[in-house]
Amino acid sequence: MFKINEDYLKLPGSYLFSTIGKKVAAFQAEHPNTSIIRLGIGDVTRPLAPSIIDALHGAVDEMAHAETFHGYAPDLGYDFLRNAMALNDYVAKGCDINADEIFISDGAKCDSGNIQEIFAKDNRIAVCDPVYPVYVDTNVMAGRTGTYDARTETWSSVIYMPCTKETNFAPELPKEVPDIIYLCFPNNPTGATITKPQLQEWVDYANKNGAVIIYDAAYEAYISEKDVPHTIYECEGARTCAIELRSFSKNAGFTGVRLGAAVVPKDLKCGDVMLHSLWARRHGTKYNGAPYIVQRAGEAVYSDAGRAQLKEQVAYYMKNAGIIYEGLKSAGYSVSGGVNAPYIWLETPKGMTSWEFFDYLLERAGVVGTPGSGFGPSGEGYFRLTAFGSYENTVAAIKRIQEI
Amino acid sequence: MFKINEDYLKLPGSYLFSTIGKKVAAFQAEHPNTSIIRLGIGDVTRPLAPSIIDALHGAVDEMAHAETFHGYAPDLGYDFLRNAMALNDYVAKGCDINADEIFISDGAKCDSGNIQEIFAKDNRIAVCDPVYPVYVDTNVMAGRTGTYDARTETWSSVIYMPCTKETNFAPELPKEVPDIIYLCFPNNPTGATITKPQLQEWVDYANKNGAVIIYDAAYEAYISEKDVPHTIYECEGARTCAIELRSFSKNAGFTGVRLGAAVVPKDLKCGDVMLHSLWARRHGTKYNGAPYIVQRAGEAVYSDAGRAQLKEQVAYYMKNAGIIYEGLKSAGYSVSGGVNAPYIWLETPKGMTSWEFFDYLLERAGVVGTPGSGFGPSGEGYFRLTAFGSYENTVAAIKRIQEI
Repeated sequence: MFKINEDYLKLPGSYLFSTIGKKVAAFQAEHPNTSIIRLGIGDVTRPLAPSIIDALHGAVDEMAHAETFHGYAPDLGYDFLRNAMALNDYVAKGCDINADEIFISDGAKCDSGNIQEIFAKDNRIAVCDPVYPVYVDTNVMAGRTGTYDARTETWSSVIYMPCTKETNFAPELPKEVPDIIYLCFPNNPTGATITKPQLQEWVDYANKNGAVIIYDAAYEAYISEKDVPHTIYECEGARTCAIELRSFSKNAGFTGVRLGAAVVPKDLKCGDVMLHSLWARRHGTKYNGAPYIVQRAGEAVYSDAGRAQLKEQVAYYMKNAGIIYEGLKSAGYSVSGGVNAPYIWLETPKGMTSWEFFDYLLERAGVVGTPGSGFGPSGEGYFRLTAFGSYENTVAAIKRIQEI
Repeated sequence: MFKINEDYLKLPGSYLFSTIGKKVAAFQAEHPNTSIIRLGIGDVTRPLAPSIIDALHGAVDEMAHAETFHGYAPDLGYDFLRNAMALNDYVAKGCDINADEIFISDGAKCDSGNIQEIFAKDNRIAVCDPVYPVYVDTNVMAGRTGTYDARTETWSSVIYMPCTKETNFAPELPKEVPDIIYLCFPNNPTGATITKPQLQEWVDYANKNGAVIIYDAAYEAYISEKDVPHTIYECEGARTCAIELRSFSKNAGFTGVRLGAAVVPKDLKCGDVMLHSLWARRHGTKYNGAPYIVQRAGEAVYSDAGRAQLKEQVAYYMKNAGIIYEGLKSAGYSVSGGVNAPYIWLETPKGMTSWEFFDYLLERAGVVGTPGSGFGPSGEGYFRLTAFGSYENTVAAIKRIQEI
């Protein structure tokens, strides 16, 4: 008789966005004339940039003729895209990353979920709290997190690194030494960042302790300040301790196009074994490449026209971020994020819980955000708004909040 | 200090296609004037059909405007595609499968690699021999296969079901009862099929013994004979024991477009737990949906125009299959497959090993095929040719083989 992977059953239900959906639907039913503004979800809303659209059409046309048709892609990605990424994301920034260390994928969510597979089951992970849920959940499914304590909402084998106002929303080096450290800067959900010297401390810590850093750089395009690193490979020694995950979702609006990449330097080893080889083996065995037309769209992200158009797109969202940040601040809220990230993280006022503030904002302003407690226990008392709405909606939402 | 997943290291090197590549390159260097014809790889060569191209262009245009832009897809796929599949692939064939039991993915390779994850580590798998390597390799990486015997090229915990001339290239019910049974019909690499009553025996066996069948239906579109089932759900009782994997790669030429689906009926349970819930959880946690434009292309596969065009495309390849089959037969070879599948499986002549015949065919005819031994020990003494080349090349290749 077959048996299931019991570790899957340990996962608590994922109720965050379904609960939000239900509450919003109930409110809308009671208030059919209120136009609800959603600043809750991390999905983009701007259309794809013209140069991306052109690249897609061009690649589709290639698929229409035998001479230019493309079947199976190379397992690890087309050279044209790997070269463009190596050149623009690394070499141009003075980082020593080669094209053959870049693995093209269908997105950073998949990579951040799958990467744990190449590590031993008894490795201990460390995560920020609050955190993007995929890092923890995929380790739960692999049986790596011990037992769940429903009261504290924590796993016995996971090392949590609180990121609150008290830590300036940055994690501190953990006292217990983890084997795998998940870091995401600029951060989802808090919008916080750390400086290059601060990141260097993490790299040094990882190298000293034989830990691997999984560095999620999905929001890199939103960095506006000078001392914030765009990639972990700006730090000395990162080649021996860090895997970096890249996304096209937020810098180019590819949430529905699906493209990402993982960088695994060949110097990152366990004994004689390169993690590069293991990840290549996983790609070759369980994955069949990102679509040709999507990889061509990714290439267009790095063209002159593409870069100019996407700079405008990011600026559009960051203008929204500024409106939210300044608007809330002037209304007396304690706000962070929003400067190097499309996420604004605010303290709930008057001692409200995250969910109480959710209800308050929905009922009083018709605005939907995300309760911070949905991202982990240290998110309690906080709330996330995103800059991915339209300009008009963002302005209207903030006006409503100010008028509560 | 972090440690790696040691199970990855157990995998023997994957040398089949790289060895073929090296041998072909060496031959070409020595014989620069010989035009080599490749009938080895399972990749398609015909361009995408016009209705697919139209759907892709149309969806790309939608992505260019805020009003019709699509961000994150629903985790399990867009309803328009799930409904089209349910209707055309199942309901129209009298099978009881609902749209919400169909999980859209980026291909059958990924699904066939990932599906093992929802099962317990100590489950035993049974595979045909020869076999598509992904089934076994992904179980090796999960630590489910025991130890490897390099002499017999088998894993201690895997139940092998030889498919040779003696068994009419079909597996027999295993004596040891497995927990998970991988079946693929029409088969890669042998091109063999089984009848509906034969498949019913497997379904009955699985239900009786509490086993799950992972049924790979990637080559369903190539079925030409009446008594061959197009889906396992034609068999009574399959809803309680079978997961079916569907591909768009071979019926619609999507090898470089990437689209597939897994069907997990809600009646398939371990105790109270639906495998449907586990697979949904995996999709929701580790996957972010197939691209919108690709799902629209998938929908076009089921349009009237799409169906007509793809019928022609399959007929094109099956004409090649007929040419290979008849041509080899008339040249005295013992041949199978090629009637309900794009693969032709031949016995190597004169007692040659698979690799000896590879060299023989390359040197004497300049034709590249795939040694059967690359698919498992029972593939030794066999050889695979594929119908996915151009008509002209296929005719030329067979003429050359006949003239050896």
